[in-house]
Amino acid sequence: MKFCSICSTALEFKIPPSDSRKRAVCPCCETVHYVNPKIVVGTVPVWKEQILLCRRAIEPQYGLWTLPAGFMEIAETTTQGAVRETLEEAGVQVELKGLYSMIDVPHIQQVHLFFKAELLDLAFNPGNESLEVRLFSPKDIPWDKLAFVTVHKTLKWFVSEQDTGHYHLHVDVVDLAATPTHLVL
Amino acid sequence: MKFCSICSTALEFKIPPSDSRKRAVCPCCETVHYVNPKIVVGTVPVWKEQILLCRRAIEPQYGLWTLPAGFMEIAETTTQGAVRETLEEAGVQVELKGLYSMIDVPHIQQVHLFFKAELLDLAFNPGNESLEVRLFSPKDIPWDKLAFVTVHKTLKWFVSEQDTGHYHLHVDVVDLAATPTHLVL
Repeated sequence: MKFCSICSTALEFKIPPSDSRKRAVCPCCETVHYVNPKIVVGTVPVWKEQILLCRRAIEPQYGLWTLPAGFMEIAETTTQGAVRETLEEAGVQVELKGLYSMIDVPHIQQVHLFFKAELLDLAFNPGNESLEVRLFSPKDIPWDKLAFVTVHKTLKWFVSEQDTGHYHLHVDVVDLAATPTHLVL
Repeated sequence: MKFCSICSTALEFKIPPSDSRKRAVCPCCETVHYVNPKIVVGTVPVWKEQILLCRRAIEPQYGLWTLPAGFMEIAETTTQGAVRETLEEAGVQVELKGLYSMIDVPHIQQVHLFFKAELLDLAFNPGNESLEVRLFSPKDIPWDKLAFVTVHKTLKWFVSEQDTGHYHLHVDVVDLAATPTHLVL
């Protein structure tokens, strides 16, 4: 970020009055350009014991498997975003069953939210961002071909809880140092 | 947003290739300037039966009472942000006890997260953004002088669950049409 998006003046980086952090500040129109983390919303879509995954048709992580998820848009809610992303990437309608995981990914300034979801039908088909969409039994999940660490964490929790049928919210943080390299975004 | 923050060229508003929404796109450097909702993080800080509130020293809602909360910063986690905001606004350290509410506020493009928290001591004192910080017994909460609808919702749930001692996560959406005018941000 080099120029003011309001008036095009070159930005200065300094601590604004009554603040404690350096921000991009416009010396002309005085706008402070804050930068904040983004929210990624997605689902764990299930049909009986099986879980729906999408194989990515785009970078990053082309060809690897993921839960349907993407950036939350303005003027929508977290639940609307999760349903929309599932429809866009897997072509299928779901009914949400509660927030299942909230995972901070501070090294890329993101927070990932996954909702438990039930498929309303089996007429799924890959959207533009997916090569393939299919259901996996818990024992067949392609653990070594998953795209993202938050997907890996969420699926591990979910599969371990499928045995008991008791699901609960998981709040966690991605520790970059503890993450296998192939899983880092 | 009128100019590219990377190269200062006047932006165009159009649907980028492989997208379905209008975005601010730079015709010169081709950067797509996405705009996404922001996260507000805060706490419900308790000491035995009492709840800590801060009286706002800044606009909006100057002079009204709020739970300590503010915008999540980059390079921090949601929990770190909630602890930081509590320290900045109330001058006190807390120990978090889990996510308590997640409330979408789509008309201002925000998602508010409140964590249950226990005060580690009683040496609180107002930061720059607070006129006053004090503990309230549930029956004394100033319901008609609360600053924000998400604070009102979270406190209502919390106080009603204090009777039973059984707290659970609340996921909700602010419905602008159903909100008393004085509570709208």
